[in-house]
Amino acid sequence: MAEKTTSVHYLNYLQLDKILEAQHPLSNEKEEEAHEEMLFIIIHQAYELWFKQILHEISSVMELFQKDKIDEENVGIIVRRMDRVNKIMTTLVGQLDILETMTSLDFLDFRHHLSPASGFQSHQFRKLEVMLGLKIEKRHQFGDCPYHAQFEGEKKEEILNLEENQSLFMLLEKWLERIPFLNMEDFDFTSKYEDAVNQMLEKEIEGIKSAKLTDSDKEIRLRMIEENRKYFERVLSETEHNKAMKEGETSLSYKATMSALLINLYRDEPILHLPYQFLRSLVELDHKIATWRFRHVQMVEKMLGQKIGTGGSSGQGYLKETVDKHKLFTDLANIATLMISRSYLPELPKNIKDNLGFNFKN
Amino acid sequence: MAEKTTSVHYLNYLQLDKILEAQHPLSNEKEEEAHEEMLFIIIHQAYELWFKQILHEISSVMELFQKDKIDEENVGIIVRRMDRVNKIMTTLVGQLDILETMTSLDFLDFRHHLSPASGFQSHQFRKLEVMLGLKIEKRHQFGDCPYHAQFEGEKKEEILNLEENQSLFMLLEKWLERIPFLNMEDFDFTSKYEDAVNQMLEKEIEGIKSAKLTDSDKEIRLRMIEENRKYFERVLSETEHNKAMKEGETSLSYKATMSALLINLYRDEPILHLPYQFLRSLVELDHKIATWRFRHVQMVEKMLGQKIGTGGSSGQGYLKETVDKHKLFTDLANIATLMISRSYLPELPKNIKDNLGFNFKN
Amino acid sequence: MAEKTTSVHYLNYLQLDKILEAQHPLSNEKEEEAHEEMLFIIIHQAYELWFKQILHEISSVMELFQKDKIDEENVGIIVRRMDRVNKIMTTLVGQLDILETMTSLDFLDFRHHLSPASGFQSHQFRKLEVMLGLKIEKRHQFGDCPYHAQFEGEKKEEILNLEENQSLFMLLEKWLERIPFLNMEDFDFTSKYEDAVNQMLEKEIEGIKSAKLTDSDKEIRLRMIEENRKYFERVLSETEHNKAMKEGETSLSYKATMSALLINLYRDEPILHLPYQFLRSLVELDHKIATWRFRHVQMVEKMLGQKIGTGGSSGQGYLKETVDKHKLFTDLANIATLMISRSYLPELPKNIKDNLGFNFKN
Amino acid sequence: MAEKTTSVHYLNYLQLDKILEAQHPLSNEKEEEAHEEMLFIIIHQAYELWFKQILHEISSVMELFQKDKIDEENVGIIVRRMDRVNKIMTTLVGQLDILETMTSLDFLDFRHHLSPASGFQSHQFRKLEVMLGLKIEKRHQFGDCPYHAQFEGEKKEEILNLEENQSLFMLLEKWLERIPFLNMEDFDFTSKYEDAVNQMLEKEIEGIKSAKLTDSDKEIRLRMIEENRKYFERVLSETEHNKAMKEGETSLSYKATMSALLINLYRDEPILHLPYQFLRSLVELDHKIATWRFRHVQMVEKMLGQKIGTGGSSGQGYLKETVDKHKLFTDLANIATLMISRSYLPELPKNIKDNLGFNFKN
Repeated sequence: MAEKTTSVHYLNYLQLDKILEAQHPLSNEKEEEAHEEMLFIIIHQAYELWFKQILHEISSVMELFQKDKIDEENVGIIVRRMDRVNKIMTTLVGQLDILETMTSLDFLDFRHHLSPASGFQSHQFRKLEVMLGLKIEKRHQFGDCPYHAQFEGEKKEEILNLEENQSLFMLLEKWLERIPFLNMEDFDFTSKYEDAVNQMLEKEIEGIKSAKLTDSDKEIRLRMIEENRKYFERVLSETEHNKAMKEGETSLSYKATMSALLINLYRDEPILHLPYQFLRSLVELDHKIATWRFRHVQMVEKMLGQKIGTGGSSGQGYLKETVDKHKLFTDLANIATLMISRSYLPELPKNIKDNLGFNFKN
Repeated sequence: MAEKTTSVHYLNYLQLDKILEAQHPLSNEKEEEAHEEMLFIIIHQAYELWFKQILHEISSVMELFQKDKIDEENVGIIVRRMDRVNKIMTTLVGQLDILETMTSLDFLDFRHHLSPASGFQSHQFRKLEVMLGLKIEKRHQFGDCPYHAQFEGEKKEEILNLEENQSLFMLLEKWLERIPFLNMEDFDFTSKYEDAVNQMLEKEIEGIKSAKLTDSDKEIRLRMIEENRKYFERVLSETEHNKAMKEGETSLSYKATMSALLINLYRDEPILHLPYQFLRSLVELDHKIATWRFRHVQMVEKMLGQKIGTGGSSGQGYLKETVDKHKLFTDLANIATLMISRSYLPELPKNIKDNLGFNFKN
Repeated sequence: MAEKTTSVHYLNYLQLDKILEAQHPLSNEKEEEAHEEMLFIIIHQAYELWFKQILHEISSVMELFQKDKIDEENVGIIVRRMDRVNKIMTTLVGQLDILETMTSLDFLDFRHHLSPASGFQSHQFRKLEVMLGLKIEKRHQFGDCPYHAQFEGEKKEEILNLEENQSLFMLLEKWLERIPFLNMEDFDFTSKYEDAVNQMLEKEIEGIKSAKLTDSDKEIRLRMIEENRKYFERVLSETEHNKAMKEGETSLSYKATMSALLINLYRDEPILHLPYQFLRSLVELDHKIATWRFRHVQMVEKMLGQKIGTGGSSGQGYLKETVDKHKLFTDLANIATLMISRSYLPELPKNIKDNLGFNFKN
Repeated sequence: MAEKTTSVHYLNYLQLDKILEAQHPLSNEKEEEAHEEMLFIIIHQAYELWFKQILHEISSVMELFQKDKIDEENVGIIVRRMDRVNKIMTTLVGQLDILETMTSLDFLDFRHHLSPASGFQSHQFRKLEVMLGLKIEKRHQFGDCPYHAQFEGEKKEEILNLEENQSLFMLLEKWLERIPFLNMEDFDFTSKYEDAVNQMLEKEIEGIKSAKLTDSDKEIRLRMIEENRKYFERVLSETEHNKAMKEGETSLSYKATMSALLINLYRDEPILHLPYQFLRSLVELDHKIATWRFRHVQMVEKMLGQKIGTGGSSGQGYLKETVDKHKLFTDLANIATLMISRSYLPELPKNIKDNLGFNFKN
């Protein structure tokens, strides 16, 4: 903290000479100034600034996970950074309201200058997708070329390297597999949970049988329960799970899924509180990115109808496909299907419960 | 304004005794109080209050349209009320953030009491859909029964009557058909517009031919333009349009579509300013309702995963289908596809231009 | 549109090399990397980008007003641009949620490097204030120096020149004075309005006298009405108005105020619809900037408590003072005080009413 | 879960017959239907529904605090409920955008019917203020009567009782005083912290002395540091603190303040993570309520200018005063002033650090 230079000025610190000189509307150059092009440039630059911040946070989260042992303090930090990323995403979604003040007619005043540039060429956004875990074979392909054909030199290499590296998805999976709670002392989580599910389903069946319902209503409901049971069975069987993974229906390993289930069910235990918040924040991020894509589709619809996007992309079509297809943490969201009411939740043995609490007792 | 009674108290004016006594958690009755059920009740009640307000606005808008002659003052009122409806929708979307603070585990504490009640049974929301113009045959059907099987007696009759009545979509179509601008004096809009489109496409073709592009690139771009041309031709041909209507590809009549196109192109003329805002507000409403459904799907995913909703609905599946399928004003959004740059826009003859302006000259 | 170069790439178009290379955390240079400094830099850069866009819009609005005759098309454009500015302000307010994820402890990790840089040094924000109409003598002064002592060279000159130039406030005033509706044919607005006010107050007095109220209640209410009457009288008297201007209680000229009143009262007339929206948008902008300052104070309170800001500013204190003091369009907001119910509104003579409508009759 | 009745219908569950029949515009009764009155009623009802939910959450939080021993699980629950309250507040602030679509002229169409009803009479909002800890003597008084003169019978009694009961502020204070970390084994927090502060200030002084600054600049900075030192001294002295409490400058007891400081400084320790989130959520709630009041003032300004509110209240004036004056957790926000950089933070002895962590080690 010692020597302070006195020269730090807001202007220099933020390098505003660079930032505020980086807007060069092509319509000006061509001497057909289109007032609205400035907005088009600035909003995209604002997006890219925020993408940089998101990458800064996600990289740091991944680094923390790469350590063999994540200590508890770090989970707190990770949760806070994920929360920030989600708040940024909220701003990015809201920001579309600004762009929607530009109408199709305004856009046509300069759109022809841009071709073939396209938001599809955002290197940072591709990086983000890859770092989160989007594999090239899971992408909705657009046109004949792989998505990284948009980039050259270092930029391309960076993307290709990232494809090879560990993604946040993989780091998450390993962390979940490493968590030591599935077999604690004499508490075998999976079998205890299975018992609880069966108990719950039995009670539901009883309930239906004794209810004042028409026979056909009863039948419908019983059938529903049987389907539920099959769902639970399939999920709990490691063999079935591995089959589902091969068929691309699920991506998260069996062991990691069981850990995620445990965390979701016992989230009220102090030690699991932050891990639960972390899992939740990933689902949230998935949803927010999907919402951003969804609202993006709407914005394009307002601006271009069914016209083909700058860069020759039928923006809408491509974007629409990615809303669902590029989601990465659906397996975590689906854990909700496996929740059972707290009243059926197998109680933890006292020694384990203590183990999951704090040392300090007052 | 004369006689004021002194008795108006906030409490009575708002009938808060009714409003604040209408929360009866079933889990309390069953003596298994679930803290979170209150939220579940109150948020749904808040939704229904706002639906009432939306219906109040939409009904008044429809009434104004039912008059043979809508004078200009009324278009101003209509635009303001639509704007309010859209602001309400923004709040309704945002409100989902509150519901998402209830997790799957919390929900399971009381979910079993609710069956088979379901948001699917919201009478007001169905009314809104029907009033806007959603026809039963365009609905995504859910289960074996028509959607109105959820209602009985007066409630059912009201829905069935609404199905028979004029919807906002129909009133819009008639109003657009009635607008007298398509053939003004010696200005035949459709043919002038067609000329302008051809001129634009020719210039684009020239541009491509003289550009420094590989031959295959040129070919791709020229093919794109040809597809554009076909699109324009199909839209401008009344016969093609009617065929598309029969095949359910479009819903808005040819004449109404041409009027909407004219309004979009000449929105800067004072007299068309408000009509343009009105068309825009309908697309906005469509988008906001779709966003609400979309976020609703996400909320259900967080809460239930792939579980079956209260009332036996696979909430997610149904809701997901309706996001796109229940949109009503896509034809208006698609007008954007037909926009041409202001530089190609056929200039209005001076006498017509004056006609579209204000009387008052200073 | 003719020759297209094929080289336009998203990356170059947006000059992302400049934008994304402009983040140089001082804590990195000093080899005490503080993770959170990146956020601090990026959010301020995002603010500056948006300020640039706001200045782009406000400048264009001012230019349109500088023309002697603003035709009606332009008022439409002006309203749309002001609407965009207000949407940007909404994003800027919301964006504070991101910054608030940085806590005081995080900030202390790098805060000492920044001194004496301060958001107070934002040249663009000062420009905005001056362009809107904030005069140096109306500013809350901070420290001993005038606010522009923060700037040097060209930057300083630019600010000093802007102080001399016409502000949006002045352009608004002139425009309102120029509007020709106050004396139309034989309709003298001010005296008609005065009659209507008196009629309204008389009726209110009658109402109170005949109401079932205690004598003391009646007295209170009658006194209230007398105060209202005095308020109306003061506002309607040109002499009183000029006195109030001299004493700094109001800023907008008498004639401009009367025009603004007329626009507010007869907003439903087609020709006044857009002017009304414009006046409204200015009040909205004033409120949004004030909200931004207000939330800014809260953010600083969370981050620094009562500590002194970077740059030696007691951020909170200064900001708090400016929330109200730097508002510029309060005179327009106060027009609401002069509204009278539509039932008392003097009816316009038919020839004038026609004059305020459209030419086109169908 | 056993016997389900089949009769639960959305309509009955939500008691929509009550909710949706509780809108009776007075302008309809008086046969001067004002379209906008419906909005006025419904938005206030929506506010009251949400106030009920907020009270539901705050009551439950207070109940959890009333237990002698709050176990760690409960702090998690408390944090989640506070988070929900804050999300509700966000919706309540945003909802004002809907009300602002009603203009002053619209409001005047029915405003005279309402007198003297006023939002000032919201019983639930007063309850909330009292439960949080607003004491009658700290209120900005409005008119001659105490605020509870607005209520009668049971409603009045309820308020008066609440005034006597423990508030959330008091429960917070007791909980902070009870927390056993201030004197752990041989670690005396207050004196360790005092040392660290002195060390920090010394280093800052050194830094200034050796910096390339003009003498007068140096002097200014050194004076600033001396003021900082005095501030720290005053806060750390129990005698000074008690004096400040007597003079109404601070409200939180010395011991509670020290605990809050400790929690803020050592928030990264697992056991302090949730307590920190709780303290933060209280500051957040204070800020959100203040923002709601602030935006409320703006809304009233748009609607009424400086006119006197329904119920004879100069709404603006009263509301404006309460924005700052009714804040309750300023003492918690001010803890930020006492933060010191992590690099000066006294390190916890290993045995204590372990104590603040989890039992479970993997």
